[in-house]
Amino acid sequence: MISSQTSSSLADNVLAAIQSVVGFGPVSLHEPSFDGNELQYLKECIDSTYVSSVGKFVDKFEKDLATYTGAKFAISVVNGTASLHISLKLAGVQSGDEVLLPALTFVATANAITYCGAIPHFADSEDATLGIDVLKLREYLNKTTSQESDKCINKITGRVIRALIPMHTFGHPSDIDGLLSIANDFNIILIEDAAESLGSFYSGQHTGTFGLLGTLSFNGNKTITTGGGGAILTNDEGLARRAKHLTTTAKLPHAWEFRHDEIGYNYRMPNINAALGCAQLEQLPSKLKAKRELFLRYQNAFKNLKGVKLFSEPMNCQSNYWLQTLLLDEIESKFRDNILSVSNNSEIMTRPVWVPMNELEPFNDSPSMDLANAKLLSQRIINIPSSPSIVLRAK
Amino acid sequence: MISSQTSSSLADNVLAAIQSVVGFGPVSLHEPSFDGNELQYLKECIDSTYVSSVGKFVDKFEKDLATYTGAKFAISVVNGTASLHISLKLAGVQSGDEVLLPALTFVATANAITYCGAIPHFADSEDATLGIDVLKLREYLNKTTSQESDKCINKITGRVIRALIPMHTFGHPSDIDGLLSIANDFNIILIEDAAESLGSFYSGQHTGTFGLLGTLSFNGNKTITTGGGGAILTNDEGLARRAKHLTTTAKLPHAWEFRHDEIGYNYRMPNINAALGCAQLEQLPSKLKAKRELFLRYQNAFKNLKGVKLFSEPMNCQSNYWLQTLLLDEIESKFRDNILSVSNNSEIMTRPVWVPMNELEPFNDSPSMDLANAKLLSQRIINIPSSPSIVLRAK
Repeated sequence: MISSQTSSSLADNVLAAIQSVVGFGPVSLHEPSFDGNELQYLKECIDSTYVSSVGKFVDKFEKDLATYTGAKFAISVVNGTASLHISLKLAGVQSGDEVLLPALTFVATANAITYCGAIPHFADSEDATLGIDVLKLREYLNKTTSQESDKCINKITGRVIRALIPMHTFGHPSDIDGLLSIANDFNIILIEDAAESLGSFYSGQHTGTFGLLGTLSFNGNKTITTGGGGAILTNDEGLARRAKHLTTTAKLPHAWEFRHDEIGYNYRMPNINAALGCAQLEQLPSKLKAKRELFLRYQNAFKNLKGVKLFSEPMNCQSNYWLQTLLLDEIESKFRDNILSVSNNSEIMTRPVWVPMNELEPFNDSPSMDLANAKLLSQRIINIPSSPSIVLRAK
Repeated sequence: MISSQTSSSLADNVLAAIQSVVGFGPVSLHEPSFDGNELQYLKECIDSTYVSSVGKFVDKFEKDLATYTGAKFAISVVNGTASLHISLKLAGVQSGDEVLLPALTFVATANAITYCGAIPHFADSEDATLGIDVLKLREYLNKTTSQESDKCINKITGRVIRALIPMHTFGHPSDIDGLLSIANDFNIILIEDAAESLGSFYSGQHTGTFGLLGTLSFNGNKTITTGGGGAILTNDEGLARRAKHLTTTAKLPHAWEFRHDEIGYNYRMPNINAALGCAQLEQLPSKLKAKRELFLRYQNAFKNLKGVKLFSEPMNCQSNYWLQTLLLDEIESKFRDNILSVSNNSEIMTRPVWVPMNELEPFNDSPSMDLANAKLLSQRIINIPSSPSIVLRAK
């Protein structure tokens, strides 16, 4: 089998297909848009002087997030990394534990594990969801772990595998039923990294609400933004209370005394960032609609292009289509960098997926299963411009 | 010697003196005020869509902070705690090290040390500056440490004492010459916690610029605010570059590749918070002037009140007077809680200093020198309303 086209023709064709949808550059990968009450809410912060760590927008944003996702509780924090860190703490992840996560994720997932003194343990990814390959992981855990006092022990390292953090890649839900079943069978706590998947549903239920805890991100490149921000989702009232406590320096309530009963963190989301979030959340439905419309336009543009496939939401899922994703045929993956060059040189921003975590220097020695498909996917994936404004502004 | 007055008369007199300056309640301890370009700069963020981790206000805020403080470099971060954490990392503080700090500080100083896996080691405070008692610390270190390969070893625990973090309490500079001399003589790295002292100078030089690194906070209760925020100050270009790298997930520069060369953090200050900071920094001189004027008014109000003294800036210092501070005579300290009750019940917000760190559960087992004066000061200090707006709005 040989490639049916040259590097330059594939790159040119991909660029032409993107441009048929987004027009000519410069077009960013994902830019925020502010078409609602943002400025009004910011003005309310300024006028009331409540810009910092308490304020009505913090309360409202948390309530609105809980309502939208269906989680009983949402606790806003300073960013997605902080939400992962605290969720791991709340799940009882301790120094010397191992935590399973996909090798194919943003570095924050792995970093947060190390903040707890724990060790990332990498899992392979599947083509169907771009998330953890559940069948392969189950087989691996069957072979390499044992159960001792209801704990999952890595037989090779002797360490406890305490938690499992799937990440819903580019907003596409992972195989959540399969992951829940692994968590249950192997006594591992499930925490969902839903940083990319606000607005994504699995079997009609919002991502981030299946595990003991779920985490969101509102970084500038996400579907909605608070400048910087994140949130912890949970249905457990005790965990929600502890999440708020740990993220607000573990200060005990008192009229004036400063007493803290454990090592805490300054991870509160400021009111001014929450104000932005409240306005953005109001526009989430229209943004999601625009992102789905963008997918359909790309689908049309790429339908006859050989060697590349536009990734579409997994079965039984409704994805937010955060980042639109091209999947190069395996044989065409050698042209990935050429496609990236040609498009970026034309000011159409595209990017590859992250370097798999196991290939990063700080995680070279971390335990992992066979990661052949994560490696392959990392060479095949290209994200293309995904802003809802591409659709909304054209109206 | 017995107290010359009853609890109720002292509390009533203190309340009357405060009210003679601030009027009748409700008056908060320290509230932000936004009298400049805040809304305009926020609007520029919204209009440009640059609200997140890059943007012109981040660059401008860092440049303006460097100019104002005289530090060669300022790196903005998500809050003061983050600036302490990264500064400790940059100073080479490692797991198992000890770090000296005053017992009388906000919990963030101690927490940040633990984030590095290091152990807080508490020092006593002096009346003259409310900061570390330098003479007492030197005597203690002479007795309890030894030098091994240019490292300061705690002879009792066997651990390296790697760093010393004085905190400039309520904006009043500590005895910086004395601290620098200890750092030099004992081979300990000096990091200044200047969270409270933006606008405070020691011998004409801005606090936070004497140590290898200095840290600032722009929390809502500080002299100027970014909602939540902080900054790292340093004159060392290599450290400045590493600070930016570590606070931006340690990502290596590349047109599209996501490669990170060490465990990093998501500690960037969002552009929208920096926008607020730029506008606030423009008003710093007028705020400082108002705070000094407030001090003078309080000085007048309290000059004839027995049993209590208004704290004034140490010799050779120009303080920002962040929080105005009453120091009860030792014999009157038993009335502290009564004074706090009476004033807070009248909606004049007052508060005591922090519970000394060694008395908090997470630090019960931490090493410390004798902390008799920190304990005493913790019973004698009362902070009273300190907002610049008290003066500015009365105009």
